[in-house]
Amino acid sequence: MINACICTIGDEILIGQVVDTNSSRLAVALEEAGLHVSRMLSIGDDKKDIRETLRRELRHHAIVITTGGLGPTKDDITKGVLARLSGSTGYVEHAGQLKVIRQILASRGLDMLPSNQAQALVPDKAEVIVNKLGTAPIMVFRNLPGGGTLYALPGVPHEAVGAIPDLLEDIRRHQPLGHILHRSVMVYGLAESALAARIAPWEDALPEGMHLAYLPNPLTGVRLRLSVYGCDPEEGEARIQKELEGLQSILGDLIYSLEDSTLEETLGGIFKAHGLTVSAAESCTGGEIAHLFTSVPGSSAYFLGSVTSYAIPVKEKVLGVPGNIIEENGVVSSEVAAAMAEGVRRLTGSDYSVATTGLAGPSGDEHNPVGTVWVGVAGPHGTKTARFQFKNDRKRNIERFSASALDFLRTFVLADLNN
Amino acid sequence: MINACICTIGDEILIGQVVDTNSSRLAVALEEAGLHVSRMLSIGDDKKDIRETLRRELRHHAIVITTGGLGPTKDDITKGVLARLSGSTGYVEHAGQLKVIRQILASRGLDMLPSNQAQALVPDKAEVIVNKLGTAPIMVFRNLPGGGTLYALPGVPHEAVGAIPDLLEDIRRHQPLGHILHRSVMVYGLAESALAARIAPWEDALPEGMHLAYLPNPLTGVRLRLSVYGCDPEEGEARIQKELEGLQSILGDLIYSLEDSTLEETLGGIFKAHGLTVSAAESCTGGEIAHLFTSVPGSSAYFLGSVTSYAIPVKEKVLGVPGNIIEENGVVSSEVAAAMAEGVRRLTGSDYSVATTGLAGPSGDEHNPVGTVWVGVAGPHGTKTARFQFKNDRKRNIERFSASALDFLRTFVLADLNN
Repeated sequence: MINACICTIGDEILIGQVVDTNSSRLAVALEEAGLHVSRMLSIGDDKKDIRETLRRELRHHAIVITTGGLGPTKDDITKGVLARLSGSTGYVEHAGQLKVIRQILASRGLDMLPSNQAQALVPDKAEVIVNKLGTAPIMVFRNLPGGGTLYALPGVPHEAVGAIPDLLEDIRRHQPLGHILHRSVMVYGLAESALAARIAPWEDALPEGMHLAYLPNPLTGVRLRLSVYGCDPEEGEARIQKELEGLQSILGDLIYSLEDSTLEETLGGIFKAHGLTVSAAESCTGGEIAHLFTSVPGSSAYFLGSVTSYAIPVKEKVLGVPGNIIEENGVVSSEVAAAMAEGVRRLTGSDYSVATTGLAGPSGDEHNPVGTVWVGVAGPHGTKTARFQFKNDRKRNIERFSASALDFLRTFVLADLNN
Repeated sequence: MINACICTIGDEILIGQVVDTNSSRLAVALEEAGLHVSRMLSIGDDKKDIRETLRRELRHHAIVITTGGLGPTKDDITKGVLARLSGSTGYVEHAGQLKVIRQILASRGLDMLPSNQAQALVPDKAEVIVNKLGTAPIMVFRNLPGGGTLYALPGVPHEAVGAIPDLLEDIRRHQPLGHILHRSVMVYGLAESALAARIAPWEDALPEGMHLAYLPNPLTGVRLRLSVYGCDPEEGEARIQKELEGLQSILGDLIYSLEDSTLEETLGGIFKAHGLTVSAAESCTGGEIAHLFTSVPGSSAYFLGSVTSYAIPVKEKVLGVPGNIIEENGVVSSEVAAAMAEGVRRLTGSDYSVATTGLAGPSGDEHNPVGTVWVGVAGPHGTKTARFQFKNDRKRNIERFSASALDFLRTFVLADLNN
């Protein structure tokens, strides 16, 4: 498999001012094309470091892709390093890129400055892919010391991402690419370690060339990623399918998606497919469940609304939770979770509803430790509640409470649909 | 200045499945402590690559910080590499971390598996900083080949970020760091470039040794960070104070905090200080405003609750928005935003309220383009609305809509308090 390195150039990433999203967008595209990204790195606007880093990475990678360091103020550094590295003897003006520069400036009503015109200059050993979205040309240097190819992309995210199709086309034209297949399996309700123990025999029996990774996240549970390297696409698909069936027979309903979906996307798919609607009543999760539902495009088709009842009078007055239920059982209780779910279902007229009442932190109350949540779900065939216990990190608890509530609702709705 | 390298270990970043946010969070903290992050890199779960990379980076950096590669499952091999690199002759069980592991499992009602217990094992040359937020211990290896120190942090973001204070404390105890003073100025309502243009004369006149950084974020606006390097703490404080006064006279109310506070924390402080309460009615922001309010510990003192009225009948029935107002003005309108704000204020009995109605995307409607939001605020002295226009990124719009609504509410409440 062909090894690639992605190298981001610019001080703004090293001081944490900007999160590097270019690298992950590039990595997804490269992996899907069958390259293996074995290294990403970020270095500063330092000539010596850029030169030495690129030299070294070109010894270990057939393809090195840089992003950044090509702006009108900084391009002397990176472009100069690339000129030297490629053995260029001078610079040439690229007519195609100059035309784009002129168009961009004209569309903004700006005059061409010397620094703008200089962006069309490239080292004479560079091949140019015209950057239609910005002023800095995409440069390709082949047969560099070590034998590799270097692609220099602009750092502005939409320009870097916009360059990906041309980049891949150029790579494919020059390199025979192996095939990689990835499949994600989304699992909720088991911690990473418990999941690993449960599927250990299956994992140990995975055939040669197949690799499993665990990607835990409080909002989505554990994402298992199964990869097959270097085989025929159809054969790889069949091999993955066979292993997936084995995994499904072990995990059953703990698997909520065989695509790269979140819990809220999966639930949304179920509601949409069956023409069902949903609402939420939130106490401790404080709007996070509604936020998750509505972060899915098209959620207005099934999500009717929610009530965040932080204060007890709002629970009573808006959701109609009887005051004596709160007094007798405490506000963090199965009874209150059930009444909240039933209340918001009545209020919005939704088919299903989900409710949370708990203690996200920083402290517990006289009845329950911090990290306790009661989840209630209500539907046309009744109401159900469950208690979950987490730790004492407020932000994390809000996420875990919400995800547990969504997953509890998922199994509740699926049970109805399967009956 | 001491050079540091941040190295992320794990295939999930290299295939682009996860965007690395740990590195930028660490970089901000390290820079603020006076270290210079000169390199970030991401490598895969490959024993040889981890070993060779760490060896090389330790030759060039006094401090290397790794994140990731320490989970209980099989794709995590970092610990073995660190054992060899440090010349450890075996593993020892760390009682403090084992206790945390036991507590975490017990709090989730889980049994201790061999893979859990193994997480408490550390190479005998490692010093341990107990990870209170997760099962993998934070390991410190000193005097590695090259003379440097390596800190191995867990990869789970909240654990990595949670480890930062202990990490900095340890670094400070072992390395003489130059004195740096930072002050944050939180600004909302101006894009980074517009802000830069507005304060350019002030910025250009900053004295030697003082540095300004722009840290933009859709939920908090632009955080300006003013830093003074290498001077006496008291003198530095006085010098920063003088410059801050100049900045305040330029920006006025656009500055919402002179501490490192978010909009929701700043608002919470105002409500608490004046014994006021607040509620929210959300359409397009779908629970995000409630989520922001309730993410602040102690928010139950002033946040009474909210209604997410995604469906029109919920706007009418729960919030009491008259149907003819929606028909006449469209659902995304000043009138509906005002009626929603007044409705939820009436419903919850809060002193103030904030409401949003808009189009987060993916598409607009017949009256408004995607990215339009109307914000309504209501209080004891009346109601006010404002329209904001953003672009067409749904997730980003939900954040920008929410932040704009909070900031509009802030200026509304402040105007009342100043009258």
